[in-house]
Amino acid sequence: MKTPIFATPEDVEIAFYEAVNRGNLNDFLAVWTEEEEVLCLHPNGTLLGTLESIRESWREILGGAVKIRLHFRRIAYWRGSLIAVHHLLEELQSNQEASGVFRVTHVFMRGAYGWRLACRHTSSAGSDFAMRQDVEKRTLH
Amino acid sequence: MKTPIFATPEDVEIAFYEAVNRGNLNDFLAVWTEEEEVLCLHPNGTLLGTLESIRESWREILGGAVKIRLHFRRIAYWRGSLIAVHHLLEELQSNQEASGVFRVTHVFMRGAYGWRLACRHTSSAGSDFAMRQDVEKRTLH
Repeated sequence: MKTPIFATPEDVEIAFYEAVNRGNLNDFLAVWTEEEEVLCLHPNGTLLGTLESIRESWREILGGAVKIRLHFRRIAYWRGSLIAVHHLLEELQSNQEASGVFRVTHVFMRGAYGWRLACRHTSSAGSDFAMRQDVEKRTLH
Repeated sequence: MKTPIFATPEDVEIAFYEAVNRGNLNDFLAVWTEEEEVLCLHPNGTLLGTLESIRESWREILGGAVKIRLHFRRIAYWRGSLIAVHHLLEELQSNQEASGVFRVTHVFMRGAYGWRLACRHTSSAGSDFAMRQDVEKRTLH
């Protein structure tokens, strides 16, 4: 598989959501850094601290009967030459009952192949949040 | 009030927890950046996006009848010349029933007065987590 080059943190983030929304595990894994520590925290508090655990967890998510779609809106960001941080509001929709609105912090690192995702911290935006229309729908393909 | 200089992100983090554990609002506010976007996300999903809202929310927390103490353990970190990110496990103890274990992402920025806190994303580590002894107690004074 050809290693993609992501020129900006935004490119990584768009590739992340495209991969999730297409259910493509290889594209999903390609956005994560192999040069730095990685961490993926699910909204239920489960912490994945290795690429292997991230792959196995998302293999189940993306390969399951429940097809999910994530929409996102950027709320805030901080930028350096080697690290960037984005804070987002994220809405999950699915073909079944699962849905929700989440607050997400993404940490990106710049390395040999451009920018990559190093950390994804996700948490619930609150139980009454999903009823509001605060998430701008961004359809990603 | 003399503006403190924090030489490292770790110094900011220690000052943050010392200020909370002493209930000192001025010391608490001094750890936050005035040069960059700020964001403080409480575990209930409430997002504070200005220094004013952070001050008012923490004035209530630190000035209330429930005295809290936070202990923390660093789980992962990412470091650049201008930005640093720490991911922590945090335990809240209080003189009343309130308690809990939280997962925390701190984003630090380096500016004119050294490092400052720019973003604090807190979420529950899960309801059964508080029963375990996974948090190394670090008493901070």
